[in-house]
Amino acid sequence: MMQKRIYLDNNATTMVDPKVEKIMQPFFCEHYGNPNSLHKFGTEIHPALHDAFNKLYEGINASEEDDIIITSCATESNNWVLKGVYFDLIAKGEKNHIITTDVEHPAIGATCRFLESLGVKVTYLSINKDGNISANQVREAITEQTALVSIMWANNETGLIFPIEEIGAICKEKGVLFHTDAVQAIGKIPVDVQKANVDFLSFSAHKFHGPKGIGALYIKKGRQLTPLLHGGEHMRGRRSGTLNVPYIIGMGEAMSLAQSYLDYENSTILELRNYLEDALLKIPDVFVIGDRKHRVPNTTLISIRGIEGEAMLWDLNKAGIACSTGSACASEDLEANPVMVAIGADKELAHTAVRISLSRFNTKEEIDYTIEVFNKAVERLRKISSSYEGKI
Amino acid sequence: MMQKRIYLDNNATTMVDPKVEKIMQPFFCEHYGNPNSLHKFGTEIHPALHDAFNKLYEGINASEEDDIIITSCATESNNWVLKGVYFDLIAKGEKNHIITTDVEHPAIGATCRFLESLGVKVTYLSINKDGNISANQVREAITEQTALVSIMWANNETGLIFPIEEIGAICKEKGVLFHTDAVQAIGKIPVDVQKANVDFLSFSAHKFHGPKGIGALYIKKGRQLTPLLHGGEHMRGRRSGTLNVPYIIGMGEAMSLAQSYLDYENSTILELRNYLEDALLKIPDVFVIGDRKHRVPNTTLISIRGIEGEAMLWDLNKAGIACSTGSACASEDLEANPVMVAIGADKELAHTAVRISLSRFNTKEEIDYTIEVFNKAVERLRKISSSYEGKI
Ligand SMILES: Cc1ncc(COP(=O)(O)O)c(C=O)c1O
Ligand SMILES: Cc1ncc(COP(=O)(O)O)c(C=O)c1O
Repeated sequence: MMQKRIYLDNNATTMVDPKVEKIMQPFFCEHYGNPNSLHKFGTEIHPALHDAFNKLYEGINASEEDDIIITSCATESNNWVLKGVYFDLIAKGEKNHIITTDVEHPAIGATCRFLESLGVKVTYLSINKDGNISANQVREAITEQTALVSIMWANNETGLIFPIEEIGAICKEKGVLFHTDAVQAIGKIPVDVQKANVDFLSFSAHKFHGPKGIGALYIKKGRQLTPLLHGGEHMRGRRSGTLNVPYIIGMGEAMSLAQSYLDYENSTILELRNYLEDALLKIPDVFVIGDRKHRVPNTTLISIRGIEGEAMLWDLNKAGIACSTGSACASEDLEANPVMVAIGADKELAHTAVRISLSRFNTKEEIDYTIEVFNKAVERLRKISSSYEGKI
Repeated sequence: MMQKRIYLDNNATTMVDPKVEKIMQPFFCEHYGNPNSLHKFGTEIHPALHDAFNKLYEGINASEEDDIIITSCATESNNWVLKGVYFDLIAKGEKNHIITTDVEHPAIGATCRFLESLGVKVTYLSINKDGNISANQVREAITEQTALVSIMWANNETGLIFPIEEIGAICKEKGVLFHTDAVQAIGKIPVDVQKANVDFLSFSAHKFHGPKGIGALYIKKGRQLTPLLHGGEHMRGRRSGTLNVPYIIGMGEAMSLAQSYLDYENSTILELRNYLEDALLKIPDVFVIGDRKHRVPNTTLISIRGIEGEAMLWDLNKAGIACSTGSACASEDLEANPVMVAIGADKELAHTAVRISLSRFNTKEEIDYTIEVFNKAVERLRKISSSYEGKI
């Protein structure tokens, strides 16, 4: 029997859509020129690049005069915003304060801690027991010294959507720069930079069926930002380095596909996720973090009392199902789920989290099989659990 | 008749070797997991990644204990070294001086100018009239304040090889960190990080038939370097961001192929380049910059008195031949060749440079055709040249 392969870890990374692979393919061995070259090998690439940029602009409703600058990933985009604003406003002594949350991705969290080592003051807003933050928390944290507010659009662990439009309006009113890490929002909910009044927005192609190792930073018209990569003046001098032609074209296609599947995500995939969640919630002492109404359609962070998340992963993995403990997507070590900790879950519970994240490539059959395996695994593991004393 | 396509601009970028494309292909839509995931989709990628890293270590003779950290390009690697050393040694007030040359790639040049704006002292060593620098110039420039020497291994315009081993020995003796931008050396001449005593070395896959948008920074064992990209602690915490699995695997393969073709480059391609050069030097008032003995095997920077480089490019391009004026690989504007200017060529001459750079994919037939087209173009353009009064 062929080993089953069911991928339910789409918040960590996604499969490249075959259509994306196909559109990239000619740009490796055939149209391989450098688009900055003056000759035909360079210029023949311009129409496809132009097309890709149009798709990116449309995907987030950027205006023509805004910049979408290609980066190597959202980690780069996030570092760039924080360090750029540091050089623009903070190193020069104009301002000295950044506001963020305590559940951002490490690309924000670790960068903030680095900036603190340089003397920057950082406020980490705490999420409430529902896993969300309120726009009012942001309003209250802003001071005369605040240079930047950086708050993610949707959380990678819980899928919870933060009130970005409200926060954008407050930042605009207060004259404070606003950045959002929209990595987990693109392709899952509508993302409109104009409506949300953001100055900067990060995304990463591999979270919406594009390739790994390419992302972008949206920069609103007129916003200054000291480059993170100085050099040959690519991308209007904002980000140097030879352009990754195939991946830019692939990311454009992935963005356009993500837009066209947005309804499907919010109907069929949402229903599939809820179907799975309802089935799992029938198991005693199992609960899901965060209200469905405020979550992206593909994500469930579920806690199974008495069972370590890693033990669950192991049983699921043996049955060919991939999901995650919901700890940092990068770390191979066995840490408590950071969002569970931030919510105030006790340490034992924080180690029981399992994150299941769907994509448009998942099917009802896969989910039925997952429910079956999940039930068996809970039964097996609770039997041998030293900490669990409830009903199996 | 099919339009001819003859690519002689391999110092700007190269074709992805079809073998490289092939080895990357399964990692887009089939083995698409995140290698940091604990499940099978993640772990099944480890052997191929491991293999790719081995090829990179072998390619530059790194020791097991050294680090080769994947970046998005040499521009990132170069920025990282300079800014990392800035935070490690300069911002804290220990040292305050960097030594480089006046013909580095803008990824070094522009970053140095940025650091100057932060108060760092930078010495730009001048190349001599042969287009090279001497190790003694470096020795004389080093002071108690010197934190870093950054000098390219081979120049992108002329192909001239700088005395990296001698400079490495001097830096070691003086206890100064040494970085080399080896982008134009890899695949053209042997690059041995141990023999050259380098602390840091940058390279970029697309210059040796790998994909665009991936590179690396070699970091000698024990060398500290503040990260440029903080975040999820990928690559042992040195460079965060989800790994670009297909391109890492492709870069490994490209490196391995580059090593196996090194003899071919230094025999067949060298002869082809010399054959082309000899033929073009028969045209009156044409000269080549830099002694053949000190050049990488694929590059010719040639000056044709009385003809603007761009005019030459245009005629060549019409005939299907791609080369470059040898100005910055990034800039689309028509500037004088920076190395010609550095050598001390007058402004008129500096605008006449044409850079021809071969690869292992070029053939004798292509070169014969190029010689024919070149001769015709020179004749045509000199006839209409206002500045040329010599023999056509
Ligand atoms: C919310 C969020 N931000 C940033 C990132 C970083 O993306 P990348 O690893 O592509 O840089 C991730 C995923 O890893 C994420 O989930
Ligand atoms: C010597 C040298 N260094 C650095 C670079 C930058 O490489 P990349 O554009 O891949 O970052 C180039 C080429 O553009 C180069 O020729």
